[in-house]
Amino acid sequence: MSEDCIFCKIIAKEIPGDILYEDEQVMAFRDIQPAAPIHILIVPKKHIPSINEVTEEDETLLGHLHIVAKKLAEKEGIAERGYRLVINTGKEGGQIIYHIHLHLMGGKKLITPKHL
Amino acid sequence: MSEDCIFCKIIAKEIPGDILYEDEQVMAFRDIQPAAPIHILIVPKKHIPSINEVTEEDETLLGHLHIVAKKLAEKEGIAERGYRLVINTGKEGGQIIYHIHLHLMGGKKLITPKHL
Repeated sequence: MSEDCIFCKIIAKEIPGDILYEDEQVMAFRDIQPAAPIHILIVPKKHIPSINEVTEEDETLLGHLHIVAKKLAEKEGIAERGYRLVINTGKEGGQIIYHIHLHLMGGKKLITPKHL
Repeated sequence: MSEDCIFCKIIAKEIPGDILYEDEQVMAFRDIQPAAPIHILIVPKKHIPSINEVTEEDETLLGHLHIVAKKLAEKEGIAERGYRLVINTGKEGGQIIYHIHLHLMGGKKLITPKHL
């Protein structure tokens, strides 16, 4: 746990979150500033600031985030319609909270931006 | 391998790709229609149509795609500046090729779209 990390505080239940799923390795809760009709964050309980800090040891954990996302997409009724999974890293990637989080977004046809 | 899958054909080297990385499990090549200055696709060699079809057995493989993406971000010189990892699923998610692919995008400040 990192002292100043808001996601660590939600994981520790020191501050509230709209928690949808929890197991030994991960927690999932709704984004408080949704960018899509359905916008859920799936986070590892282990504090890893960004993808830049992951190692081979974290492979299963990173994969597990995606398995949980897939199950949440089914539960939210968007599996067939479709959805997007996003991990932002660093400033140019748009990362705001420096604790890895997988965005699950859906609920409408998502635009595919061009960054050119 | 799936007969009609363009990514399976690149993996089998039946059609050319700008291949940047290859190991037993995954291959990475540049997107032929880049949506960012740096736009690389990291794909599992195993044909899995989308995240909707993954199982617990694929956890390590899914994590491995991300470890490879991290290393490619370093190699391309965008690790510190930042980058985005995206997996689109299904129609509303903007998936075009039905063989799982992790988009690694960077090289400029990426916009963060609102889908509301």
